Amino acid sequence: MHPKNSPEEKLFLDAISKLSAIPGVENFELLRQTSRKNNFEYGLSMEFTTAQAYEDYNQHPDHVAFVRTIWIPEVSDFLEIDYEPLG
Amino acid sequence: MHPKNSPEEKLFLDAISKLSAIPGVENFELLRQTSRKNNFEYGLSMEFTTAQAYEDYNQHPDHVAFVRTIWIPEVSDFLEIDYEPLG
Repeated sequence: MHPKNSPEEKLFLDAISKLSAIPGVENFELLRQTSRKNNFEYGLSMEFTTAQAYEDYNQHPDHVAFVRTIWIPEVSDFLEIDYEPLG
Repeated sequence: MHPKNSPEEKLFLDAISKLSAIPGVENFELLRQTSRKNNFEYGLSMEFTTAQAYEDYNQHPDHVAFVRTIWIPEVSDFLEIDYEPLG
């Protein structure tokens, strides 16, 4: 975990922000988590028009490189939640 | 857990949908969770302009009644995540 407002946090968040440029990503939001009911520090929200668009994002070289060089070394815990409209 | 598309699920989801009418709730979204990386069935997302607006929602009689009559009896597990814009 990077100290809040540290240079390390800034580099980490800047790297995450660049994910928004990968094709298919819509409504990108980088958020700070503030509930005392869980231990997560940040939230990352994005939308995709189709499941295929999400799959293409997952396999995009920029995303694959991000996972290898930033996500795996720097993220100690995460929860992936995927939503579809109900109905 | 209610069976998918059952009358019990419909009543449960209808009750949740009514939370959108409580003052202060914005961008209300009722969602189905589809990731295989966690066990949650639904997602409920809403936004508030201020922390006070969220507190007022929490204490609103319609919300308090919902928690007592629907949420506590019918929800077996949940995770509350609160986000603020980063910066």
